Amino acid sequence: MDPVIILVEPQLGENIGTAARAMANFGVTDLRLVRPRDGWPSEKARNAASRADHVIEKTKIFETLEEALADLDYVLATTARQRDMLKPVRHPVEAAQVMRQTIKEGGKVGVMFGRERWGLENDEIVLANEILTLPVDPNFSSLNIAQAVLIICYEWRMSGNEREAALPFETPDVQRASKEEMVGLFEHLEQALDEASFFRPAERRVHMVRNLRTILQKGDWAEQEVRTLRGVVAALQRGPRDDDK
Amino acid sequence: MDPVIILVEPQLGENIGTAARAMANFGVTDLRLVRPRDGWPSEKARNAASRADHVIEKTKIFETLEEALADLDYVLATTARQRDMLKPVRHPVEAAQVMRQTIKEGGKVGVMFGRERWGLENDEIVLANEILTLPVDPNFSSLNIAQAVLIICYEWRMSGNEREAALPFETPDVQRASKEEMVGLFEHLEQALDEASFFRPAERRVHMVRNLRTILQKGDWAEQEVRTLRGVVAALQRGPRDDDK
Repeated sequence: MDPVIILVEPQLGENIGTAARAMANFGVTDLRLVRPRDGWPSEKARNAASRADHVIEKTKIFETLEEALADLDYVLATTARQRDMLKPVRHPVEAAQVMRQTIKEGGKVGVMFGRERWGLENDEIVLANEILTLPVDPNFSSLNIAQAVLIICYEWRMSGNEREAALPFETPDVQRASKEEMVGLFEHLEQALDEASFFRPAERRVHMVRNLRTILQKGDWAEQEVRTLRGVVAALQRGPRDDDK
Repeated sequence: MDPVIILVEPQLGENIGTAARAMANFGVTDLRLVRPRDGWPSEKARNAASRADHVIEKTKIFETLEEALADLDYVLATTARQRDMLKPVRHPVEAAQVMRQTIKEGGKVGVMFGRERWGLENDEIVLANEILTLPVDPNFSSLNIAQAVLIICYEWRMSGNEREAALPFETPDVQRASKEEMVGLFEHLEQALDEASFFRPAERRVHMVRNLRTILQKGDWAEQEVRTLRGVVAALQRGPRDDDK
């Protein structure tokens, strides 16, 4: 169960389509439109939705906001402007958590978004349980609808269990090189540097070796990476091959 | 101090503009473009940026990615596709926290985004410290550039409010080496290895260089450490001194 996304009097088909696509990116699929200005279906919406056809196909149209919200229990109204009403204001993270909780308890949730430019009317916001607003820079606060939908759906996904919020891929799981392998690298390099008279003056060798080992340890390398570095040291130690001259 | 946003070969002016606007929404203002396909300035970008003129005005253009990254210390490469390289993968929340920490310590950070459709090349990703990916629905994972920029900038802003318990990560004592210094090390070592005929057969050089750069990038070294390693490479390159024989 995911939140229902409700767009009130969306003016542009492209914005509906981009919002549908933003929903699909984060696994949210229920879109409801209240009196879309240019009607429905909408070619512009379909095109902008790209491959989010499944969202476009499922989209429901309503004549009134009341009908669009009828079966929902907990609804948030998204707005950038403070309203003169005593309604709780939620951060997207909090909102997602409350929605998760509500759904877990068998409830049905929705998030309302208003018109391009004008947003939601006060009487529409009154129907919501709480207000949702995004932490935008106050000097530049106008997010377009599809962008606001994107962030809310992103936070929705993030609030889910680990599997849902999981990245599509993780840091590759390779084992670090053992200390034995690391020391092998250290000693190999130090020997090559001795041959090149790098540690000068002699009394500084201990300090320089310690410094170098600290630098190399930071690499936190896997076994195969240490092997590669051993190959690099060996090649430099050997220098230009006779058969290359 | 905010992160620098780098777009590599952005194809469409509208996307640059929408990205600029997304940045402005969350108080991020430094935009760098590497070889924008349709040049610069761009009317389409300016129009799509809406009132984010301040970002468009400040936008810097670069011929190469290396130049765009030269003054940065910690860079994330944003990608939806898993790459065959041993580089850490970060979640947007973690990434924002590491960026905050780095900036607090006086470092400079950047986030790279690739071309519409093709994203970033492996050789571009290699220059980054870590990979950043978003927890999208695997069945519908393609976010467009401006949307990815929006979410990263949103998380950046959120990380400033102590949104959740910070992830454990080490506090480097010194500032990381800049990308310019890292590339200096890479090129120096690669030249020495060319002289030693390390890259054999020739057609494997690209792959081997990429592998080596990934290994070295993991070192996360400070400026003085990179200097030490340059000294090591120079010494091995020079080999045994005549005056030692």
